[in-house]
Amino acid sequence: MISPIDGGVTAPRGFRAAGVACGIKASGAPDLALIVSAAPASAAAVFTTNLAVAAPVIVSREHLDANQGRVRAIVTNSGCANACTGDAGLRVAQLMTAEVARALGCEAEEVLVASTGVIGVALDPRKVSDGIITAVEALTASGGADAARAIMTTDPFPKSFAVRVETKRGTFHVGGMAKGSGMIEPMLATMLGYVTCDAAIAPGLLRRALVDACDVTFNAITVDGECSTNDCVFALANGASGVEIEDDEYELLVEALRAVCLELALGIVRGGEGATKLVAVHVTGARTYDEAKLAARAIANSLLVKTAIHGADPNWGRLIAVAGRCGADFHLAGARVIIGDIVLFEQGRPFDERAPQAAEYLTRDRLEITVDLGVGGPEDATIWTCDLSAEYVRINADYRT
Amino acid sequence: MISPIDGGVTAPRGFRAAGVACGIKASGAPDLALIVSAAPASAAAVFTTNLAVAAPVIVSREHLDANQGRVRAIVTNSGCANACTGDAGLRVAQLMTAEVARALGCEAEEVLVASTGVIGVALDPRKVSDGIITAVEALTASGGADAARAIMTTDPFPKSFAVRVETKRGTFHVGGMAKGSGMIEPMLATMLGYVTCDAAIAPGLLRRALVDACDVTFNAITVDGECSTNDCVFALANGASGVEIEDDEYELLVEALRAVCLELALGIVRGGEGATKLVAVHVTGARTYDEAKLAARAIANSLLVKTAIHGADPNWGRLIAVAGRCGADFHLAGARVIIGDIVLFEQGRPFDERAPQAAEYLTRDRLEITVDLGVGGPEDATIWTCDLSAEYVRINADYRT
Repeated sequence: MISPIDGGVTAPRGFRAAGVACGIKASGAPDLALIVSAAPASAAAVFTTNLAVAAPVIVSREHLDANQGRVRAIVTNSGCANACTGDAGLRVAQLMTAEVARALGCEAEEVLVASTGVIGVALDPRKVSDGIITAVEALTASGGADAARAIMTTDPFPKSFAVRVETKRGTFHVGGMAKGSGMIEPMLATMLGYVTCDAAIAPGLLRRALVDACDVTFNAITVDGECSTNDCVFALANGASGVEIEDDEYELLVEALRAVCLELALGIVRGGEGATKLVAVHVTGARTYDEAKLAARAIANSLLVKTAIHGADPNWGRLIAVAGRCGADFHLAGARVIIGDIVLFEQGRPFDERAPQAAEYLTRDRLEITVDLGVGGPEDATIWTCDLSAEYVRINADYRT
Repeated sequence: MISPIDGGVTAPRGFRAAGVACGIKASGAPDLALIVSAAPASAAAVFTTNLAVAAPVIVSREHLDANQGRVRAIVTNSGCANACTGDAGLRVAQLMTAEVARALGCEAEEVLVASTGVIGVALDPRKVSDGIITAVEALTASGGADAARAIMTTDPFPKSFAVRVETKRGTFHVGGMAKGSGMIEPMLATMLGYVTCDAAIAPGLLRRALVDACDVTFNAITVDGECSTNDCVFALANGASGVEIEDDEYELLVEALRAVCLELALGIVRGGEGATKLVAVHVTGARTYDEAKLAARAIANSLLVKTAIHGADPNWGRLIAVAGRCGADFHLAGARVIIGDIVLFEQGRPFDERAPQAAEYLTRDRLEITVDLGVGGPEDATIWTCDLSAEYVRINADYRT
């Protein structure tokens, strides 16, 4: 059984965290977060597929390869993405892991690193070094909330979540935090996710479960079609609960990770730039799962769909048109469009008399939209998105001025 | 030699056109256009690949197959897309071609048909029949401008263009008109293009040349990433100039079609919903042409790029990030970003001291942006786009309210 509990990354046992200010952000807001596991933890990560990777991604990848999936800490700075910063940037990312390792008395390879913020700007090694010393002193078993604040850039609110998981072998906990609010700065800054767990889980199993959980959570959201560029999601499992998870409880593990990741992912969409509505786009009746996801993603990224939702316009034609052009198999005569539970298009004909009712539904701030591709296939998929407002344009047109 | 001349679809010899009002648009604005060739013309067309096709697309495709590429006329209504209208809609589209054929004394298969406007609304057969009778009476050899007005929906201006082509065999002319202003209504309404030519050209050759010309013009523009859904481009060549074009002058033919199509296509972008700037996105150094076009299209459709351009923000990082994630081969160390002729990123490092100069350049209403993918490939491609303004959101959020 999985039930929500208070807290975030320090809700599982054996994890401490801190969030401090070290002067990277001119505002003086917290900009350095540290998560530390008392014992070496199994670690897994999902990195962006973008070919323009930032220095901390390169370093974290190398360390994960070198340490065979055993990690003591993750250090993160916000306010500077340390991206497009060449060899100097790589040295600062390495320095960050070395400083944490020195303070904790472990190897640099046991530390992962992430950065988020403005790109193409040098990250000051003295500021992050000082910040790491302060953060290590500030580590507490209730520091999750501070850490969640210290990874924010333009996020309107911090995102933390945790669950208790009861298994036949005992009870363990999963906690997490994330940042992201549209691809504010494109290089790595988009989103970061952190999941901690006090079960003992082999690194390979943890990695498999993290990938499966991300597929339907962090990889199933979009704010502006650029949301999944240069992202990192980390998972640490330290065994402090005394519960060991093996293959026979894989489904439960995925479900627990998914519960935490989904709440964090939906928080990213709700806090998306200019967003006023959280929209679940369901695609049904697809030939394959990939086609279902392709269609749902195309609808979720369509400017015309997102602006129609913003204007509470039940414009089913835009949904049909995107489904027809997205590359998935589609048959107009069998297609259906449902807003909430109001069928607006079915068997080749519209039900425009229901438009006022659908328009009323579209004024809510949490919405469900369903499009059936009409080919009688068995697969479905869901992508979460937000509406597109003039505020989004204002934020992104004026970002650096 | 190819030189611009006055006029549009009636600039080539042997073509007459008309644009009249028949009451489909509540405003009373012109809403029925007719192009007629004195002699049967070779015809070719490029249709949308959207699987949700409107009735007129189905009928025009059938007629082109049946008439072996010989066409007398194209009839178009605006104000109603005749899409998602089932069998009744199909019958109205067929009726339109039959009425034109009766008035001209030819077969219905020799007439093509297109519609543009609101979808899911029945097209009144009496209105279009009356409009066709009026239009046939109004046909003149200088009616191109009227026809270009009658195909408009929310276009801010009509789009016509024509060229004179001097060849070793004599002089011929190519003219055209187009409509489109963002995917105002998604089903077929997006864009329509018409090209007339008074050379004699075999249908197969004309089709090949039209496809080649469209690839770098109508298929190389985007307003909102949905621009190329449900479109039609028609070409008619009637031989009235007495000049015959064969394979040995294929390149010249493509160049002439391209000159007309490009001017019309750029007009669509300039008149895009909420657009204030016309932007040419060049991608260079790609491994393959497909990768160059993929990258250019991804950049041209990126909300973050389009909003940055709107705000005159020389945010090279957004360009790098899209190039890195788009699926084309990319190498950061070799990549370059050039705004106008100002290099902002090269050899792995930014030149932010040039940002003010680039910001000044970005206030122009015609812009060039170049991204080199850094892999030393031989291929390049250009896509034309516009900026994304709050006005676009306003137009599309409020379209039906």
